[in-house]
Amino acid sequence: MTHVFDEAIAVTRLDADVHTVRATTHPAYNNMVGPFGGITAATVVNALATHPDVLGDPLALTVNYVAPIAEGEWDLALVPVRTNRTNQHWTFTIDQGDHTVATGTAVFGVRRDTWADTEPTPPEVPAPDAVDAVDFPDFIAWAANYDKRFVVGGFLDGSSDDSTTTMWIRDLPERPLDFPALTSITDAFFPRVFLRKGAYAPAGTISLTTYFHATADELAAQGSRPVLATAKAARFGHGHFDQYGQIWGDGDTLLATTHQLVYFKDVQA
Amino acid sequence: MTHVFDEAIAVTRLDADVHTVRATTHPAYNNMVGPFGGITAATVVNALATHPDVLGDPLALTVNYVAPIAEGEWDLALVPVRTNRTNQHWTFTIDQGDHTVATGTAVFGVRRDTWADTEPTPPEVPAPDAVDAVDFPDFIAWAANYDKRFVVGGFLDGSSDDSTTTMWIRDLPERPLDFPALTSITDAFFPRVFLRKGAYAPAGTISLTTYFHATADELAAQGSRPVLATAKAARFGHGHFDQYGQIWGDGDTLLATTHQLVYFKDVQA
Repeated sequence: MTHVFDEAIAVTRLDADVHTVRATTHPAYNNMVGPFGGITAATVVNALATHPDVLGDPLALTVNYVAPIAEGEWDLALVPVRTNRTNQHWTFTIDQGDHTVATGTAVFGVRRDTWADTEPTPPEVPAPDAVDAVDFPDFIAWAANYDKRFVVGGFLDGSSDDSTTTMWIRDLPERPLDFPALTSITDAFFPRVFLRKGAYAPAGTISLTTYFHATADELAAQGSRPVLATAKAARFGHGHFDQYGQIWGDGDTLLATTHQLVYFKDVQA
Repeated sequence: MTHVFDEAIAVTRLDADVHTVRATTHPAYNNMVGPFGGITAATVVNALATHPDVLGDPLALTVNYVAPIAEGEWDLALVPVRTNRTNQHWTFTIDQGDHTVATGTAVFGVRRDTWADTEPTPPEVPAPDAVDAVDFPDFIAWAANYDKRFVVGGFLDGSSDDSTTTMWIRDLPERPLDFPALTSITDAFFPRVFLRKGAYAPAGTISLTTYFHATADELAAQGSRPVLATAKAARFGHGHFDQYGQIWGDGDTLLATTHQLVYFKDVQA
């Protein structure tokens, strides 16, 4: 049986042109307005990773959310800009009908053996089994596809002076971690303004950038066990805030770092 | 007299097509190999900010460095993807001759009045006058255009277990801060692998993303006084590392956050 995540990130390559693929929004990954941004990003990574000309694995991804994505089909045009000896640069555009709804860039590459070190350590947290799983309201459909256990900064637990969320998260039902799944998880933090205000507010990601530190072997070793995801904002103001996050695997392995810029409006009193 | 930075970021708009501009590398901003990435990014911001159709000020910029940029002219093709009510999405490509040397995306927008807060505080540091200015070797030409005062993590001061650099930095000679200058400063950290190893290593930025939190008024108020720039890596390995940085202005104003992915090779023993 196909996992719902694999249904959602599926792409059809048009025979005539390997650089254009078609995807379809999946109702199981809808957000409050339009699809969850993480599933869109994951679909792009899937389309690139399965491209016949791809070199290696994802290193960097930027997705700009240009306009609302409507439910239904969308077309992804991939431009292979250049393949170097160890990395490969892409740009892409997502269109629906006659208008563009997203743009972005991606870098794939080959991992070489070099000196290595990870400087930060993950937050000290209880084991996943010691933290309760939390459900989001039904109108945040995508969240039902994740087992989420909040250590700090839970969903609408009141207002907070600190925008940090740290959570255990894995696909539900269980699914072995891979690059598309990791991509989606880097966007799986609810908007930091909800946490600060303890309330919903109109908000949406404008630009998402994720760097993939994990090797394919590290993802395979993680299997379907939960990862530890932590994120916080630095500055809110003038209708925008940023978010910086880290995704940690077993053995204090830093799988990804991620940065996004989010649009928000004040909640009406 | 024109400031050398303004010479370096100058663009010529081709009359027939406002979406294509020509720039020229400036020897004063050369790096060890090719131009300093910060000046390329600043030139893109300048080209967008002076575009007749621009909306507001920069919010987000991603530049992917695809191939070495040779000394001489380069052509920047700007694509205005969509203008929404409060923001505007662009993509761009930089070509030299018949090949692409950089790609990227930018978001500009209008700042609205909203709830505001900055969560982190800048590092506690001595005043700029209490820290010595440091010169880099002559073959890192661009660095001569900055007054750099390292509080921690100076240039080739020995190896370190911590990749953090915190420095006071301003243009040299003095120049009032604006969005292009801020853009350049977000790339003005030398490669974190130099700091960890206490030695040069082949290294170069693959992808740079900067979020602009500052308003134009905040930049104007900063004038030509130094900003406090701090950055560190999280994970080194497999030929790459990331860097996350913050740029602080007077009054604990967070002007920008920045994230980049860098390629490196091991130093030969």
